[in-house]
Amino acid sequence: MLSGKRHLFKLDPARPIAEGQLEQLCTSGTHGIIVGGTDGITYENTKFLYERLRRYDKPIYQEISHADAILSGFDGYLIPLVLNAGNPQWIFQVHQQAIKQFGNMIDWSKCQVEGYIILNERSKVASITEAKTSLSYEDILAYARLADQMLKLPYIYIEYSGRYGDPLLLRKLKHAIRNASLIYGGGINSEAKAREMSRYAETIIVGNVIYENFELALATICDDFIC
Amino acid sequence: MLSGKRHLFKLDPARPIAEGQLEQLCTSGTHGIIVGGTDGITYENTKFLYERLRRYDKPIYQEISHADAILSGFDGYLIPLVLNAGNPQWIFQVHQQAIKQFGNMIDWSKCQVEGYIILNERSKVASITEAKTSLSYEDILAYARLADQMLKLPYIYIEYSGRYGDPLLLRKLKHAIRNASLIYGGGINSEAKAREMSRYAETIIVGNVIYENFELALATICDDFIC
Repeated sequence: MLSGKRHLFKLDPARPIAEGQLEQLCTSGTHGIIVGGTDGITYENTKFLYERLRRYDKPIYQEISHADAILSGFDGYLIPLVLNAGNPQWIFQVHQQAIKQFGNMIDWSKCQVEGYIILNERSKVASITEAKTSLSYEDILAYARLADQMLKLPYIYIEYSGRYGDPLLLRKLKHAIRNASLIYGGGINSEAKAREMSRYAETIIVGNVIYENFELALATICDDFIC
Repeated sequence: MLSGKRHLFKLDPARPIAEGQLEQLCTSGTHGIIVGGTDGITYENTKFLYERLRRYDKPIYQEISHADAILSGFDGYLIPLVLNAGNPQWIFQVHQQAIKQFGNMIDWSKCQVEGYIILNERSKVASITEAKTSLSYEDILAYARLADQMLKLPYIYIEYSGRYGDPLLLRKLKHAIRNASLIYGGGINSEAKAREMSRYAETIIVGNVIYENFELALATICDDFIC
């Protein structure tokens, strides 16, 4: 569902955004919008954001964090699997419970699994999943190989969630991964950072800065990304 | 690596077996031998059993439980992923540590992941992995769909480990699974039980009875299975 060099904005249904800003994001050179977040995600706020986004031509994807907020109609669904979660509830049990609830209603051809490696120990998602974030390069590369070669997942998502990560790590990952597509998210708030991380990751995600400094968010779309 | 209706014997490197018995197993109508177990598995006892087995023509597979017992030369490697483990150490961390240790030496083309669902709460493997075994049919079907449709694993392994399981569950699983191949192991000690479970599972595994009543183990190979 995502291929080639990609820039995506991630919008949080629990955070308000003005109509004019939504229009600017959706008519920018970005490749698409991911709808997802960690706290306060509901069916209602997801639907509200979805209805506003669907007026534009950009592809919109739902990244699923709460089974009861799943909404039909998205162009695709991204299912995070937290490889370094310390709480088994957040490895398979949330997915198992969602599959139990929705069973045969799920259109798996629209779903893709992201092997998440959460690396910012101060993020909400690290706290909720009890992620083991004190990892050496070798540890992280081993998780990436597990996702790429053992599980054959389509995506590996390096998540620094609000903090800019380590470009050297991304470079090492790019060389270690054989088939999966590498996604990077965290702290991208300038064209230079977008350029740097997209040298290694096929997809970069710009999220928090949208809510912190809107002009900087728009500036992360560099010429190379324009469709 | 396993396809069609299959009967396999599982031999435990930590348990002694007489040469004559090994020959009878390896010249029987079984499709192959899996080498693996839970307790006391070492490189040395795995190698000892492998060397004795390789004289015969049957395919031999190693089911990996201890990274330091991995031996090159097997026809294939089966990697258990315990979907209903309660201890996250036994979901991804053991695999991650093994990949960290062996890195690029692993020939992934010879490896296949088995999505294990452990259902005998009294088994050693349930105790070690802290498996959540009190599951309804709906819970088990959801784990199976997770393995089959979300993770797209090649195998789903229903493990009753020493106890004969529920044929109705296997029937439900057969109907729910789209792509994965279903493996059943546990308590098969007669032709009737072998026949019953192989109606639903593509592969049946005969293990403990080899050590408890050898003649009954041989009797699990019914005509349908003869190569």
